[in-house]
Order: sequence, then structure tokens, then C-alpha cells
Amino acid sequence: MQTARTTPSRSAKRAHYDAETIHPILDEALFCTVSYVLEGQPMAIPTAFARKGDKLYIHGSVGSHFIRTIEQGGTACISVMLADGLVLAKSAFHHSVNYRSVVIFAQAEKVMDEAERMEALALITDHLIPGRWDDLRPTTDSEMRRTTVLAFSLAEASAKVRMGGPNDDPEDEDLPTWAGVIPLQTVRLAPVSAENSMETPLPDYLSGDL
Amino acid sequence: MQTARTTPSRSAKRAHYDAETIHPILDEALFCTVSYVLEGQPMAIPTAFARKGDKLYIHGSVGSHFIRTIEQGGTACISVMLADGLVLAKSAFHHSVNYRSVVIFAQAEKVMDEAERMEALALITDHLIPGRWDDLRPTTDSEMRRTTVLAFSLAEASAKVRMGGPNDDPEDEDLPTWAGVIPLQTVRLAPVSAENSMETPLPDYLSGDL
Repeated sequence: MQTARTTPSRSAKRAHYDAETIHPILDEALFCTVSYVLEGQPMAIPTAFARKGDKLYIHGSVGSHFIRTIEQGGTACISVMLADGLVLAKSAFHHSVNYRSVVIFAQAEKVMDEAERMEALALITDHLIPGRWDDLRPTTDSEMRRTTVLAFSLAEASAKVRMGGPNDDPEDEDLPTWAGVIPLQTVRLAPVSAENSMETPLPDYLSGDL
Repeated sequence: MQTARTTPSRSAKRAHYDAETIHPILDEALFCTVSYVLEGQPMAIPTAFARKGDKLYIHGSVGSHFIRTIEQGGTACISVMLADGLVLAKSAFHHSVNYRSVVIFAQAEKVMDEAERMEALALITDHLIPGRWDDLRPTTDSEMRRTTVLAFSLAEASAKVRMGGPNDDPEDEDLPTWAGVIPLQTVRLAPVSAENSMETPLPDYLSGDL
């Protein structure tokens, strides 16, 4: 089974500030962690999101304590991490993780324009399930009134990327311990129908998950 | 393919404070996000960790800015999230995510006892790759001197769990849109050998990944 091989990392943990690196990481990650400061203490909440251009959108209930704290200002730190693989070296010390991460520092802007709010909700839905939005009944005015949409600029975003194999010490190279990478992947399993959809065929945009 | 079915969620986002809920989530998650406050601003770093009893351990380079900030005190907020499934409702509004998350608030304690430091490194290694530690050469004094181990109490830990299917509005139940859950899973793919291990057989503790 060991036909592939991996070569030592040449770009360990180097920071990147270009959209060509940052945007695909944000587009692939399903969830982000929003960290913020409340009365001097750090808080963190995982949530769904979507990116359009150089903006990142999140949404939540108008009544959510988290959303109400964030929308009142203060910088938020939004982080995403894609874990691509476990890096096994000959020594414990050089074990590592292949990952692509993004960190964004930004103040929330509460989106007030109704068209932008609706578009952000469509983007967040389709980010998790591409094609879903157009298959849904229109969102009602009441639902929109109960939803807050926040936007964050990507102006202060940076990415870190680690890829490749272990960087072993020269004196460890000949140790008999196996070294290499165990790739990690997030997969979607076969959809499970709700009771109200047992007779409903799966839409095309989901059948690729089977 | 739709032989399984999912029933509406009955425990949406309820908080749990018991070890029986919290510990298995921490033990299954591969990475956590450590959020902290630096000069009034939120910061967040993803990292590996391990749990033993009611302590969580992380490690890092003695010279790491992150580790040096955390070890000097101030409360950290450590969060983990296992994304178990995307919950597709008949309406966009009731789309949700099945997840198990833990949030811990604690001050870092720098571990000074050498035996506890070594055990923590073994736990962190075996948390990611069970069985790995005993297959490795002993960690050297120099490597230990360059490594900081921090412990966090789980006394202020809480979990949130959402499971089950969508909670649709009664008036939406008969819409022709498919509703249900798309399970998510993190999988390990076939190990990829490093150049220094092309002739080395895979150890037993990794062959289950194939």
C-alpha cells in the first residue's frame, strides 16, 4: 500500500497574506470559530459562515447573546482550520500536523440592506450545501426580522499552511520507526431522510454525497 | 438508499456540565482552538491537546509567542467542536448543524514536574495516533528543555450537543423539498511513507487506517 511517498516540508507554518491562498481555505472550511472579548475574558463560538469577495458573513438569532455582543463592536478574531494530515516523524519532537488555517481580525458590521442580508443567508446555506438555497421556499419577512447578519472585512486576514512530510533530524533518519503522513479528510456520508421526507427523492445536488 | 430515518431534535443546544458528556467529546476531537486576550484583543490558535482526568494538556515551543503569552496567566477559552452532520430542513430558517462542542475557561498552569511533562507529551502524541509513543525513541533532555507543557483544569467546562433531524414548522411539513441529515465524518486515509521509510513496514497501530 505504500506506493506514494511524501517529501519533507519546505513551507512549515509560513504566513500568507494573499487572497489566492486565503480565499480557497475559507471556501473549503465548513465552520469557523469566532473569538471575542467579553468583560476582559476570551469567548469562542463555532459557527457557519460564507465568504463573498473580501467579506465574511455570519448570521444568528437577533436575541442571541453572542450575536448581540459581537455586533456592538470590539474586534473579533475569526479562525478556521483545515486539518489535512498527521505528520509522523522518527522522533516525537518532530511530529507535526499538515493544515491550512486562516485568522481574521475585524470588527463586525451589522448588515442592514435587505438584499445583502438575503444574499448572505443564501451564501451561508449554499456554502454548507451547494445548490440548496434555490430548492427552498422563500424566507419570510418574520424569519428575516429574527435574523441578524454580520459582515467582517478580510483586510486583516492571514493564512498559515504546513504541508509535506516530517523533517527528521539527520541522526534519526535510519531509525527503524515508520515515518510519514496520515491524510485526514472530512467526508459526507449518505443522507438520512427526516420523517417528513421518507417518500421524497433526493435532489440532484445531494446525490453526489452517496 | 434512504432506508435510515432521522427524527426531530429533542435536545437542541442544551448545555451539559457532566464529565460523562464532556470527556468523550474531548477524547474524540483531534484539535482544539485556544482563544485568549492579548492587549485587549482576542487571539485564537488551533493546536493539539490531550485530556487526562480533569486536566487538559497542550504543548509548544518554549520560544513560541503564543505559549509565552498563555503561560503568563489570564483566562484562556479552549473550544473544540465535532461537526456530526448538516441538518437540512424544509425552510432555510430551520437548517442547523448536529455537533458536539466543549468550551473550557481556565488559566494555564505551567507543568514543571518532569514526569508529568513527559506523560503529557505521550498523551498528546497518542491522542492523535494511539500507540505511537511506545514506538518512538526516547525524547532527549534537549528536546524537553525546548518544550513547554501547559495544563488547564476542566472545572469550568461545558458541552453543547445537537443531534437528530430538522425541526420544521408544521405548515412546512408537506413541502416537496427533501429534508434530513447529511452525516459528516473525519476519516484517516492510507498512510503515505516519508522518503526515509519507504522500506519500513507499517506498524500494527496504523494498519487499521488502511
